[in-house]
Amino acid sequence: MRTVILLYDRFTALDAVGPYEMLAAVPGAEVVFAAERPGPVRTDTGFLSLTAERSLAEVTDADLLLVPGGPGQVRQMANAKLLDWLRAVDATTTWTTSVCTGSLLLAAAGLLAGRRATTHWLAHDQLPALGVTAAAERVVFDGKYATAAGVSAGMDLALHLIGRIAGDQVAQAVQLGTEYAPEPPYRAGSPDTAPPAVVAALRARGRAVLGDD
Amino acid sequence: MRTVILLYDRFTALDAVGPYEMLAAVPGAEVVFAAERPGPVRTDTGFLSLTAERSLAEVTDADLLLVPGGPGQVRQMANAKLLDWLRAVDATTTWTTSVCTGSLLLAAAGLLAGRRATTHWLAHDQLPALGVTAAAERVVFDGKYATAAGVSAGMDLALHLIGRIAGDQVAQAVQLGTEYAPEPPYRAGSPDTAPPAVVAALRARGRAVLGDD
Repeated sequence: MRTVILLYDRFTALDAVGPYEMLAAVPGAEVVFAAERPGPVRTDTGFLSLTAERSLAEVTDADLLLVPGGPGQVRQMANAKLLDWLRAVDATTTWTTSVCTGSLLLAAAGLLAGRRATTHWLAHDQLPALGVTAAAERVVFDGKYATAAGVSAGMDLALHLIGRIAGDQVAQAVQLGTEYAPEPPYRAGSPDTAPPAVVAALRARGRAVLGDD
Repeated sequence: MRTVILLYDRFTALDAVGPYEMLAAVPGAEVVFAAERPGPVRTDTGFLSLTAERSLAEVTDADLLLVPGGPGQVRQMANAKLLDWLRAVDATTTWTTSVCTGSLLLAAAGLLAGRRATTHWLAHDQLPALGVTAAAERVVFDGKYATAAGVSAGMDLALHLIGRIAGDQVAQAVQLGTEYAPEPPYRAGSPDTAPPAVVAALRARGRAVLGDD
């Protein structure tokens, strides 16, 4: 199984690395990180770069395509070359997937038209204008398209995908290998459970969190 | 707050990137990735490299030191230069921390002697020989030393640390920003809850999972 993960300037590292860690653990898996230009790609914080091993021109197909989100997504919405690449690779995939605001890129490429999808909770209101039904769920499957909510939801997405691709036992082994038995010390991971003051503060600086270039 | 994250050949990406994503989101935070030589550092799968921005020689202090695990840890246990660096930086830290088998490196440097600590569930039995009391908990604090269980536990560790360093509201905002409201589709993340056959299979190939060079 060949997973291709798109990288672009100012993506969010965990959007990509969470699913990578799990998808790469499937026996026989290959994971390819691709960007417009090969080499180091800067994440949104400026503290970290991940290496794209291949240019987009070198990657013409994938079994599974994964598009991470991050503040840099805003600028990519108008990158015709990138959207063309998404459409071309999507035509070859078994699964086309995203984490966080990566779904806005899939939507901008026209790949989610008329479908249900999710994204970071602060970006749900951007989906309808792109012809997508926003679903406030952590992982949303619609045909071969699977989208995850913000940042850390990519790990749950990956386990769902592995279960469908390789079976429950393989997915469970990956979960056990990565010891993914979460115990966050707070119940603040969703706007439904976080303290209202914390939700309000993040809403107030929503554009700063999601990126506005 | 200056967090330094150690990278070395064949570390596990999520061990480092999970905590990085959360610690970097704290207002005023700086995160430095450091390795023996600056430049791309290969992860355990061979599919991905993260860039070390600094050499160990350039990094002499940290508020928070984080050591990830991964198969490459086995070889680093005998790297006197690296263990010296861990001891020297530890002398400057407010918090010295690890994820997964990173605690074995801290222990090899003598930093966990007589303390309680955790590691990947498959490696618990290696702690006592290093003079450490193995605790089967997801996150263990003992003085300024905080250790996390396998791979994904680094995110829970980071939220605990942020709560202690910057307060509950900041930690909750980071959890909400990363939408860390986990919903794994299986209950297989711990040997206590995973199907016995899955646990037995991972135990049987334990050395392959943890690395044996």
